[in-house]
Amino acid sequence: MATIVFVIPDQCTLLDLAGPVQVFEEARAQGAPVELAYVQYQAQAGSSAGLAFATVPHFSTMMLHAGDLVLVPGLADAALPTTADDYPEFYAWLQALPERGVRLCSVCTGAFLLGAAGLLNGRSCTTHWQQVGALQQAFPESRVLADRLFVHDRGVYSSAGIAAGIDLALALVEERFGPLLTYKVSRRLVLYYRRNGLHGQVSVYLDHRNHLHPGVHLAQDYLLDHLAENPTLEVLAEVANSSPRNLTRLFRQHTGLTINDFSTKIRTEAARTLVATSSLTRQAIAERCGFRDPRQLQRLLGRAA
Amino acid sequence: MATIVFVIPDQCTLLDLAGPVQVFEEARAQGAPVELAYVQYQAQAGSSAGLAFATVPHFSTMMLHAGDLVLVPGLADAALPTTADDYPEFYAWLQALPERGVRLCSVCTGAFLLGAAGLLNGRSCTTHWQQVGALQQAFPESRVLADRLFVHDRGVYSSAGIAAGIDLALALVEERFGPLLTYKVSRRLVLYYRRNGLHGQVSVYLDHRNHLHPGVHLAQDYLLDHLAENPTLEVLAEVANSSPRNLTRLFRQHTGLTINDFSTKIRTEAARTLVATSSLTRQAIAERCGFRDPRQLQRLLGRAA
Repeated sequence: MATIVFVIPDQCTLLDLAGPVQVFEEARAQGAPVELAYVQYQAQAGSSAGLAFATVPHFSTMMLHAGDLVLVPGLADAALPTTADDYPEFYAWLQALPERGVRLCSVCTGAFLLGAAGLLNGRSCTTHWQQVGALQQAFPESRVLADRLFVHDRGVYSSAGIAAGIDLALALVEERFGPLLTYKVSRRLVLYYRRNGLHGQVSVYLDHRNHLHPGVHLAQDYLLDHLAENPTLEVLAEVANSSPRNLTRLFRQHTGLTINDFSTKIRTEAARTLVATSSLTRQAIAERCGFRDPRQLQRLLGRAA
Repeated sequence: MATIVFVIPDQCTLLDLAGPVQVFEEARAQGAPVELAYVQYQAQAGSSAGLAFATVPHFSTMMLHAGDLVLVPGLADAALPTTADDYPEFYAWLQALPERGVRLCSVCTGAFLLGAAGLLNGRSCTTHWQQVGALQQAFPESRVLADRLFVHDRGVYSSAGIAAGIDLALALVEERFGPLLTYKVSRRLVLYYRRNGLHGQVSVYLDHRNHLHPGVHLAQDYLLDHLAENPTLEVLAEVANSSPRNLTRLFRQHTGLTINDFSTKIRTEAARTLVATSSLTRQAIAERCGFRDPRQLQRLLGRAA
């Protein structure tokens, strides 16, 4: 069980905090072994929009272990730190985390807290586009990158402005729990999942899911849950409460793919994962993934490679 | 000055609340004449993710006027109301708002609160895709639409799941304060602005802005702020801290348009607005929008119509 700790600075940007909270809370609800915790380091934890939080525990009460994650949201520009002078114990606590295997993430101007802890020295990072110059100036030993949704450098993640914290949180869920859970979370939150421009991995689970049609989602879910059976159009239409003809039209309209192409994509991807990670025979893999025989599978693996 | 009131139910979905709060808070920071307020109607105001709020005023203390807006976020499924029995005074308060000119919005399962107040009877609405059936069943006189980001029916707005509250809030900002402020808000929040599928209006200010490149944004901002001058490529390159050649390449890559096409689009749109809303002569409009003469303007208006 990993703990995801949200640091709440006073004058916290509410959406910086709430976006990642909701992503991890939804991952937890979907079965991911995480629990959420909130800490503060100042006398109070207010938000920049005038809504204050009830008492939040002090950071020093939190015991963290390797695999845990600490997330620092941004705060009002006027409150941005550039040194550790005001809260030396808090910054020392932050600074010791990466070497203990605890990962750190900042959203937006939360990067200034990582900088004050010395964690940006020698690392690449990013922040809100309006603060890129100020962050570089405050922490000259860091390498501040513009035009990125998020950046990862040796256990320290930073993300761009405000809503980019949602994108970073989704990327962290994907990194830890895989693309299938990530698509379930983004679908539940009705989120458009933006990938980092430099994020190499393409996901068959997430691609073609940035639409809103509930019937098409039902058909896609059913296909994912019944790879071996390779369900017929009639079965899918029933699942989606639609006619075969209408589902065919809707599926293409909302996903950009035919049902058959989507099905082949996800079954090929599942087979590729089994080839790479299991000791199953090609025959067994073909059966599990709904292929006629190992030759059909092999042809598709070759073509998609 | 309009008041935007956020109702905080106990077990509130944090992102349902925080998304619209941040959008309106940012609109306020950019000069929109709104103020934000928070109210509760139960004994406490917690969030579904375990983070509680400090004391929030009771709804009955809030004096509202025509033009104000009340937003109701969603809450944990187990806490969804289907009748007004538990908080009759609160629901009576909600119910009286539209006839007094106060608009109401729900995010996600917040639609159940509008339903319990009788506000969905005879109206079209939407909610989280997993609750579309339950909402229709609980409030049979409503018309629950699936597959929508948000729906507006005579002063009552409702939106789909969780993150769709951000889209609704942006649409409300656009409706009230125009597309230019909306693009500034979404840019500051680093948000991808998703429009409703049925949202007819296309905005030259928002289109071609769903990218992250700071230099290109600077050039676009400068063009918007200097319509009459129709700035040269050299001027824009300096503004964007780039070379003319590099800016030309980046602009096209990130916006999908040449600088010249983008400039023509925004100047034509500004001119069209002036033709429709002012008593200026065509000559004066052409000058203000950086056209050589009224004939050039007229040709472009005709072509784009």
